[in-house]
Amino acid sequence: MASKRMGRQTVALEHPPSVESFACIGGKQEGKGPLAEYFDQLEQDSYFGQKTWEQGESVMQKRALELALHKGGLKEEQLDYILAGDLLNQCIGSSFALRDFRVPFYGLYGACSTMGESLALASMLIDGGFARRCAAMTSSHFCTAERQYRMPVPYGNQRTPTAQWTATAAGCTILAKDGPGPYVTHVTCGVIEDYGISDVNNMGAAMAPAAHSALTAFFRETNTAPRDYDLILTGDLGALGHRLLLDLFRLDGLDLAGNCQDCGMLLYDRQRQDMHAGASGCGCSASVLNGYVLSGMRSGKWSRVVMAPTGALLSPTSSFQGESIPSICHVVCLSRER
Amino acid sequence: MASKRMGRQTVALEHPPSVESFACIGGKQEGKGPLAEYFDQLEQDSYFGQKTWEQGESVMQKRALELALHKGGLKEEQLDYILAGDLLNQCIGSSFALRDFRVPFYGLYGACSTMGESLALASMLIDGGFARRCAAMTSSHFCTAERQYRMPVPYGNQRTPTAQWTATAAGCTILAKDGPGPYVTHVTCGVIEDYGISDVNNMGAAMAPAAHSALTAFFRETNTAPRDYDLILTGDLGALGHRLLLDLFRLDGLDLAGNCQDCGMLLYDRQRQDMHAGASGCGCSASVLNGYVLSGMRSGKWSRVVMAPTGALLSPTSSFQGESIPSICHVVCLSRER
Repeated sequence: MASKRMGRQTVALEHPPSVESFACIGGKQEGKGPLAEYFDQLEQDSYFGQKTWEQGESVMQKRALELALHKGGLKEEQLDYILAGDLLNQCIGSSFALRDFRVPFYGLYGACSTMGESLALASMLIDGGFARRCAAMTSSHFCTAERQYRMPVPYGNQRTPTAQWTATAAGCTILAKDGPGPYVTHVTCGVIEDYGISDVNNMGAAMAPAAHSALTAFFRETNTAPRDYDLILTGDLGALGHRLLLDLFRLDGLDLAGNCQDCGMLLYDRQRQDMHAGASGCGCSASVLNGYVLSGMRSGKWSRVVMAPTGALLSPTSSFQGESIPSICHVVCLSRER
Repeated sequence: MASKRMGRQTVALEHPPSVESFACIGGKQEGKGPLAEYFDQLEQDSYFGQKTWEQGESVMQKRALELALHKGGLKEEQLDYILAGDLLNQCIGSSFALRDFRVPFYGLYGACSTMGESLALASMLIDGGFARRCAAMTSSHFCTAERQYRMPVPYGNQRTPTAQWTATAAGCTILAKDGPGPYVTHVTCGVIEDYGISDVNNMGAAMAPAAHSALTAFFRETNTAPRDYDLILTGDLGALGHRLLLDLFRLDGLDLAGNCQDCGMLLYDRQRQDMHAGASGCGCSASVLNGYVLSGMRSGKWSRVVMAPTGALLSPTSSFQGESIPSICHVVCLSRER
């Protein structure tokens, strides 16, 4: 047992589970961004053929799972667990997506860190011998998030420069005991960080300390340095959060500028698409991982990648009550080699 | 590996983790019910000393964790993970409860099945060698749930006979690799069931099929029968859901009437306290387990107990949009003997 735990937050997977298949779906804006070619599907209808955006988000998540199964030549009976969650109240994006599947389901809530959390738990369930194959999955939708967290979309309210744009996207990774890779070698579970930021239009600032804390634990406990990785990719800090993260590491004497990027800054052309600080939402890191990153690793572009999706654990209610924004980050280390 | 998986949904823990400590907190109504003596704390102030009920629910969950640590003579540094969730939008009951703890945290959303889900995942993380000690925890609060799911409390709306009363309660179990027991021997992960029930005032009917499905899988895959257990305890089906569950099993030729009870029917004196169909909420099964049940097992009242917390995976939004109520149930088998 001692060998699996590498410190307070990190575990090393004894027999690193393999990515067996992956898929991602995006919407209209994602199709106009620089990563468009990496999406399996780009849907132009924000309702995904349904009557409401919430139903549309469920259909999008369901399709991501179906695509990942299809691409892997797999059937749902071959999945031992699905681990999924989303941003909607009571996570209805996931539960309504999955009610037609007869697969054991553990529901998660990690806000925009859900892709990291689901991969971490799936990896441990497989490595622990409790599952042979798991799907890890999440989604977000611009229109469902806007009306839940901010304003009804038709209201057309002004956005601040630090605001981010919730991605309409879903991503699904199917992990298995064995396969072609990449492999999940380590996972680091975050602790909640809250530096007192209460501006809901500046989630990047709220989440940067969580990314810093989890990545610091990961480097320390694995006894590695940022330069040991080809790519360190945070979830959705956006432009300002990303700059704050680099600053926090600089105070520690570490320069991450060379190989640290943020999914929120990659998904859109911020200037041309008028996306302010960048993308956010569970679907942001989920779609960037399950398209651009995993296909890039398979094609040899990168060998060792650290994924660090971040989540802001607030609700509109907590903000109305004057609370600050607790945040968390879950780190997953991917490698082409076992 | 093969030995751990006993079928599609059930795993047997190789070295069954032990309950090391447990605690539960209730509110005013819980203190008037027949299980009052089993609570560690009964708080008369529905705000738990805070300004809002949501902040109060967080304080209640935090206190449940502190009490469980205290009763076990443990410090937070000895916890490898906390697995927790609740009913509030974006699970703020848990995240605000835990932001002062420096413990790695995986957030869950299983609605009222969260106590089962958190125990299941904690058991596997320990048995898999990823943790030595985990806290599994959840809460619910009558006033936060009413205003989120139904009506503002001061409105005083009429309740239907099938309505249940959300418990103001929190429960925390600390599981460890070794200890005095009871031990978690098996866990069965639920699949989502949806029989088309859409009446939000009749959650018991919506959840009964999920309990039936998960318990059936548990008995089949462990090759046991209901009579092999001293107590089979569903989460919060209430009076009607409980009757439906017995009916569903009767159709299978199984009589559960002798040893199957429901936490929702145990927590309150339904007639005297005017509780209609009984209690509900994540805190219902969490407090009944972490008081009445675990102390009863330790004192020798029961040797083998099957806990089956059920969750309704709806949201007010999904109901407004005319959707039915998908439900899930996670089964945890507890035994005094390893």
